[in-house]
Amino acid sequence: MELIDGNAISEEILQELKAKLAELNGPRPGVAFVRVGEDPASVFYVNKKQKVAAEIGVESTLHVQPESITQDELLTLIDQLNADPAVHGILVQSPLPPHIEERVIFNRVSPDKDVDGFNVINIGKLCQEDPSAFVACTPAGVIELLKRSGVSTSGKRVAVVGRSLIVGKPAALLLMMKAEFGNATVTVCHSRTANLAEVVSEADIIIAAMGKAAFITADMVKDGAVVIDVGINRVDDASKKRGYRIVGDVDFDQVSPKCARITPVPGGVGPMTVAMLMKNTVNAYRRSLAADA
Amino acid sequence: MELIDGNAISEEILQELKAKLAELNGPRPGVAFVRVGEDPASVFYVNKKQKVAAEIGVESTLHVQPESITQDELLTLIDQLNADPAVHGILVQSPLPPHIEERVIFNRVSPDKDVDGFNVINIGKLCQEDPSAFVACTPAGVIELLKRSGVSTSGKRVAVVGRSLIVGKPAALLLMMKAEFGNATVTVCHSRTANLAEVVSEADIIIAAMGKAAFITADMVKDGAVVIDVGINRVDDASKKRGYRIVGDVDFDQVSPKCARITPVPGGVGPMTVAMLMKNTVNAYRRSLAADA
Repeated sequence: MELIDGNAISEEILQELKAKLAELNGPRPGVAFVRVGEDPASVFYVNKKQKVAAEIGVESTLHVQPESITQDELLTLIDQLNADPAVHGILVQSPLPPHIEERVIFNRVSPDKDVDGFNVINIGKLCQEDPSAFVACTPAGVIELLKRSGVSTSGKRVAVVGRSLIVGKPAALLLMMKAEFGNATVTVCHSRTANLAEVVSEADIIIAAMGKAAFITADMVKDGAVVIDVGINRVDDASKKRGYRIVGDVDFDQVSPKCARITPVPGGVGPMTVAMLMKNTVNAYRRSLAADA
Repeated sequence: MELIDGNAISEEILQELKAKLAELNGPRPGVAFVRVGEDPASVFYVNKKQKVAAEIGVESTLHVQPESITQDELLTLIDQLNADPAVHGILVQSPLPPHIEERVIFNRVSPDKDVDGFNVINIGKLCQEDPSAFVACTPAGVIELLKRSGVSTSGKRVAVVGRSLIVGKPAALLLMMKAEFGNATVTVCHSRTANLAEVVSEADIIIAAMGKAAFITADMVKDGAVVIDVGINRVDDASKKRGYRIVGDVDFDQVSPKCARITPVPGGVGPMTVAMLMKNTVNAYRRSLAADA
């Protein structure tokens, strides 16, 4: 069993981006983060993204809004950011409060600044296999991990466990694309899947994105499979100072001995998501320069 | 083995639409067909669609363009139809000549008039499970056939054979939706799938959409499976006056004895595609009335 090191691979991508940006004169790429409320995980993720942006030379602004903000007020803020020429990428950190419809917010972000890849037009472009699509950062990071680890997907059976718009569906669409790191035979499993263990155990590559701690157990995994664990779950742990630890959707201790390759949690997909966000932001910036020229 | 009768089911849908339209006063719903060149299959399909439209009370116009039309000229025609208040639905018959990029044309059709469901916004909406999406007529017809035949999909294993934007991908997205006639465990197979016979034979429901005559053979089909044959292929047949016959993607004679239910070709999915086009057109019309009110 070999670990797929998301920290090292994401660092490689970030260094490539940093080198590209160092060659630039003039205005810097800019990304705007919108955070609603003080959910600790959201605070943590946005801080992390801002820190990484600063490290590679991307300017970021943070727009913190109270939990009580109305949907219309949030839409107005997005319109302002859409119109701001210094902002090349916009990320609205989810989850949003229940009185706000996430889809409406995501679809208001200009498709050209939609570095999160959740706007309806970018999702449609992904289906159409349009190379100008901004692809959601987590599934894009999954593909990039496979690519940079030399794991071929062509003709392989892949089980995507989870059918969310954020991970499962775009990951499935990417993996079935007519592309070098596509061309897989993809099965999308979910809460309604009968005989889930049997279905998942047919797969050469498993993408675990259910959001359930240690859901993928050894009986679901074929010997020699490659396992990409997208989950980030908190479980109580009295032995830790903060009272919990972070685990993936895969029961790592049980599953990892059966795998050819597996991503750890943390240090697998998580840092890739941030790296792909930066990659999307730099792309959005370069396209805005090309459009101005 | 029981046949799923697409002629009867599509007729049922058309009668429902006709009855709805008969209650209306005022302007009729209108659909504009655009045909480029004289491809005999395109001529046949557009004629068929016009005939069915007339039968249920939908007005149609036909815009025939020469094979030599430029992409820009075709885009200008679409802009005119987009702006025409008497046109509620627009269908550009594919295939288009090779010098025209189909994606560019489909994406120019106003999403509100995109009764063919190929515009990037409607595809994105389908991914987002937005009920306002116009869904491509053939995959929508596949679901409607299953629904009206009482074939439940929830928790079932479905093999979608073919990954086109026109059929395979939207069918897969529909079947994995969180919906009564979704919730299936979907595997998308294609030309790069290894051990295709084995993969397809796991399925409770097979959607055959490869576009290859009699591609699905008995060894690929589990006993008791439900088979939906999307293929419409010409094969030479000297015994026929016109020199060919139409066959599906399924080897019907060999496969049908193993099936619980199967669609014939012709008389299966084909008429459903036309019925769903009419349903989309009537929906587009009703939405335009609601928007004016």
